[in-house]
Amino acid sequence: MRILGLDPGSRVCGYGVIDEVAGELRYVECGILTAPEHRTMEQRLGEIACGLREVIAELGPAVVAVEDVFVQHNPRSALALAQARGMALAVIGLAGLAVASYPPATVKKAVSGSGKAEKAQVARMVQALIGLKTLPRADATDALAVAITHGQLVRPTSARIVPAVLRARAT
Amino acid sequence: MRILGLDPGSRVCGYGVIDEVAGELRYVECGILTAPEHRTMEQRLGEIACGLREVIAELGPAVVAVEDVFVQHNPRSALALAQARGMALAVIGLAGLAVASYPPATVKKAVSGSGKAEKAQVARMVQALIGLKTLPRADATDALAVAITHGQLVRPTSARIVPAVLRARAT
Repeated sequence: MRILGLDPGSRVCGYGVIDEVAGELRYVECGILTAPEHRTMEQRLGEIACGLREVIAELGPAVVAVEDVFVQHNPRSALALAQARGMALAVIGLAGLAVASYPPATVKKAVSGSGKAEKAQVARMVQALIGLKTLPRADATDALAVAITHGQLVRPTSARIVPAVLRARAT
Repeated sequence: MRILGLDPGSRVCGYGVIDEVAGELRYVECGILTAPEHRTMEQRLGEIACGLREVIAELGPAVVAVEDVFVQHNPRSALALAQARGMALAVIGLAGLAVASYPPATVKKAVSGSGKAEKAQVARMVQALIGLKTLPRADATDALAVAITHGQLVRPTSARIVPAVLRARAT
């Protein structure tokens, strides 16, 4: 099963693709979709939607995993994240794919063993679990983390290291 | 100038189209885009995005007006609204259109004269300003209200009554 993990934002949308085959997690690709800062929100979301459509068409995931959004300390940024998430969900829905949604603590726990793990610790575990030689930028790593979470929770097994090439992508 | 007003939601997206010509507001069409309740969020947003794309292609607005979203009493529903708004912004951006965004109080004031007007009062003013014989359902009326707001604020004049036919639309 090919899993696309997404970390949608209105400036940068991280994506990470892994294959889960008989309990083994194999890295496929990760990267970011970006739009220039000076563009309006609708232009940025439109461009990122376009890039996401391309990623889905090219890599053909069976399912998409995304983190839940909560309103915590900063309602403004939560709303911006929710807007980006809505853009992503619409693209996924139009592609006929289903979304698996996970709370941040579930992602941390699935990847690192602790729901309270720090960001750097989660990133190192992502790197180890799918055998990346270098750490991708944060948005792509976060996207891989939620993809790994889905891979672990749908078929809970210990993941084996399967190194592969890292690609970057920008629209 | 043809203005598309939107009231995006994850179950129902209201839309209202008016023409502003030399200070005169002329009603074109309004309706709602819906998706079945039992569908998942991504299916609903995808279907509504598809319908919105059709409305834009068919009616050819020059600009799209949408209300701002705020976190007030219910963060959960604010996030759902923001997701629907993000879907709409992405569709608008992909169509190469610009968004004019207005706070709810600005819409109320532009339509009814008071930023604290009640919903029913705003609806009656929408009906009067563009001469609708019957009141559309709330989502479509709200969409017309934000379209009228843009028409009034971009070229502030008194609107003349130009009756037209009401159409409903569902995906």
